[in-house]
Amino acid sequence: MKIEIDLKKTVDDSYSIIIDSLPQLQIDKKFAIITNETIANLHLDTLLKYLSKEPVVVIKLKDGEEYKTLDSVEYILDQLFEHRLDRKSMLIAFGGGVVGDITGFVASIYQRGIEFIQIPTTLLSMVDSSVGGKTGVNSSYGKNLIGAFYQPKKVYIDPSWLATLPAREFAAGVAEIVKMAVVLDRDFFDYLESADLSDPQTLISVIAKSVELKAKIVALDEKESGIRQVLNYGHTFAHVIEQETNYKTYLHGECVAFGMIMANRLALLLGYLSDSENSRIDNLLKKHNLKLDYKPKDIEKFYDGFFLDKKSFFGKITFILADGLGGFKIVDDVPKETVLKAIE
Amino acid sequence: MKIEIDLKKTVDDSYSIIIDSLPQLQIDKKFAIITNETIANLHLDTLLKYLSKEPVVVIKLKDGEEYKTLDSVEYILDQLFEHRLDRKSMLIAFGGGVVGDITGFVASIYQRGIEFIQIPTTLLSMVDSSVGGKTGVNSSYGKNLIGAFYQPKKVYIDPSWLATLPAREFAAGVAEIVKMAVVLDRDFFDYLESADLSDPQTLISVIAKSVELKAKIVALDEKESGIRQVLNYGHTFAHVIEQETNYKTYLHGECVAFGMIMANRLALLLGYLSDSENSRIDNLLKKHNLKLDYKPKDIEKFYDGFFLDKKSFFGKITFILADGLGGFKIVDDVPKETVLKAIE
Repeated sequence: MKIEIDLKKTVDDSYSIIIDSLPQLQIDKKFAIITNETIANLHLDTLLKYLSKEPVVVIKLKDGEEYKTLDSVEYILDQLFEHRLDRKSMLIAFGGGVVGDITGFVASIYQRGIEFIQIPTTLLSMVDSSVGGKTGVNSSYGKNLIGAFYQPKKVYIDPSWLATLPAREFAAGVAEIVKMAVVLDRDFFDYLESADLSDPQTLISVIAKSVELKAKIVALDEKESGIRQVLNYGHTFAHVIEQETNYKTYLHGECVAFGMIMANRLALLLGYLSDSENSRIDNLLKKHNLKLDYKPKDIEKFYDGFFLDKKSFFGKITFILADGLGGFKIVDDVPKETVLKAIE
Repeated sequence: MKIEIDLKKTVDDSYSIIIDSLPQLQIDKKFAIITNETIANLHLDTLLKYLSKEPVVVIKLKDGEEYKTLDSVEYILDQLFEHRLDRKSMLIAFGGGVVGDITGFVASIYQRGIEFIQIPTTLLSMVDSSVGGKTGVNSSYGKNLIGAFYQPKKVYIDPSWLATLPAREFAAGVAEIVKMAVVLDRDFFDYLESADLSDPQTLISVIAKSVELKAKIVALDEKESGIRQVLNYGHTFAHVIEQETNYKTYLHGECVAFGMIMANRLALLLGYLSDSENSRIDNLLKKHNLKLDYKPKDIEKFYDGFFLDKKSFFGKITFILADGLGGFKIVDDVPKETVLKAIE
C-alpha cells in the first residue's frame, strides 16, 4: 500500500533589505538580541534607543570566528529557554558575520524555527553574510559544515555602525565586494578601481550595488545547487587557509582576498584571465591594504585541505574562476599539478 | 534604499509512505545508517540484505528517550564528517521515534541539509513519528525543544519488524492510534474497539488508516500553525509526565495514554465528553494493557510544568480536547482550578 503525503506548496521567504539610517523599530514580540562583547560595548546603547521595547535578554558572545561553534549555539539556546522565548518570539542578530550566522542557525532550530532580523555592523556582513540565508557554524572538520538555509525577516544595513570598525576589518569587507565585481559585473569593477570608499555617498552606493548583485544570485538559486556557487570565488582556497591558521591569523575577508589571488593564478594558467586583468585585481586588493602575507607551508598538505571542504568532500574539487573581468567559470577537473603550480 | 530579495517559490516536499514488506532498495549515493544498539542486534543483518550497497558507516545510539539529546546529534555529526559524507549523501533512520527524530534533525543541519529515509521499527514510529517531518531532540528544558521541520524522502513501513517489539512498546504505539481515532475519526474508533491487532491483516489496515489520517492533517498544516495541533491531544499532559519522571519510568505512548485520560477528565468537566464516551476511551486503552499507574505527586507543580512546554511558554496553556468521539476542541482559556480538578 502506498500513501502520498502531499507537500507541494508555495513558500514566500521574500524579505527587504533596508540600506539607510536605522529607523525606529516597532517590535510587538518577545525578543532577544544576540551580539558580541565588542559590539555591545560600542553600540548596544544606541541600538536599544531604536527599539520600541526592551529585549528579554541580550546575549553577548566572545568576539571572533573561533566562537562560531556548536558550543556557542548551545549556550544561546539555553539562554533563550531560560528567558522563556516561545515559538512566536524573535531574535535580532547585531554584529558581524559570526553573530549573524550563529543567530540565523539558532533561529532555525529553536522550537523548530522562529523569526530573526539581521542588523549587520561590519562591512563584510553588510555586503555578504547578512543577505541570503546561509546560516551555520564551523566544526573541527571545516567551516560552515553544520547549518541550515534559513532566511531573515528583514535586514537593516546602516553604514554608520562602520565608524568604529577597525581599518583592517573594513578592508576585509572590501574583499567580498571585489569578489562580486570580478565575477559578476565588469562596470562595477571599473567603478571600484577609482572609487573612494571613505566618501559616505560612494560607500553607500557600493554597498547597495553589492547587495543587489548578491540578491539577484540568491533569488535564482537559494540553496546553491547551481549559479550561487559563483559567490564562492576565492573561497575554496580561503577555507583551507582558515583551517590551516586556525581562523586566528587572518580575517575571513583576508583569506578570501588571498584565495582570489590563488584562484586568479589558476585562471591565468588555464587561460581564462589575462596578465593585465590579473594585475588589475591584484592592484585593487592591494589598494585597500589587505593583509596578504600568507604563504602555504606545504603545498601538498594545502592540496589535501581542499577535500575537507564541504563542496569537495566527495573527491572532486570545484573551483570558481574569473573568466575575464565580470565573468566566471566553474571547473572541477583541474589536474593536481596545475593546482599545485597555482598555489606555489 | 530598499532592495527586495525575491524568494517566493514552489517547493515540493511530497513523499510516499510504503506500507508493505520492505522492497529491495536501489541506493546510488554514499549513505549512513543511524540506528540503536537493540535494533542493530535484532535486525541490522536483515536490513543490509535489502540494500543494493553497503553503508559507509552504521551509527548505533544507545536505546532510549534519554539519548535524544544534542550530545547524540554531535556524536552523529562527527561520525558523518569522519566518513566524509557530502551534500549529496543520504541517511537512513532505522529504529523507533528517537532514532527517527534525531536522524531527521541531523539530516536537516548536516552541510545545510541532506536527504534521509525513514524505516521505522516500532508501532509508534510507524503510525506517528516517522510521518510528518517533525524532527528534533529534547533539551533539559523540555521535549523536542530543539529541531526543525524537515521531511524524509520516503518512509518504508514494514510491520514484520514488530515481531520482536516488546508487548509494552507495542501497546504504547496503540495509544497514538487511539489518539487519532478519538479526535479525528469516529468510525475508526468503533472499529478499534473490536479489532484484534494480533491479526496481521487487521494490524496492517490499522497502521494504514492511522498514517492516512496523519498524512491528511500534515498536508493541511505542515508547520502546526493550526489544525495540526489536534495531533497533540493528550500531549500537553504527557510532556509534563515525561519531564517529571525524567523520560525513564514510562514510554512516550504510555504518557500520551495517561495524558488522554487527563484531557478527557477535563473535557468531561467542560461538557465536551459524556461519561459513556469517556469510559469507552478508557476501556479501549485498558484493553491494550497500557501501563497507566502514574499519579502526580503535587498537582500545583504539575500545573507549573505546562509552562515549560513549547506550546505554552508565553503563558497560555493550549489543551486539545475530545469533543465527542471523532471531534476535537482547541482551548486555551481553561481556569486553573478546573485544570487542577482534572489532574486530581
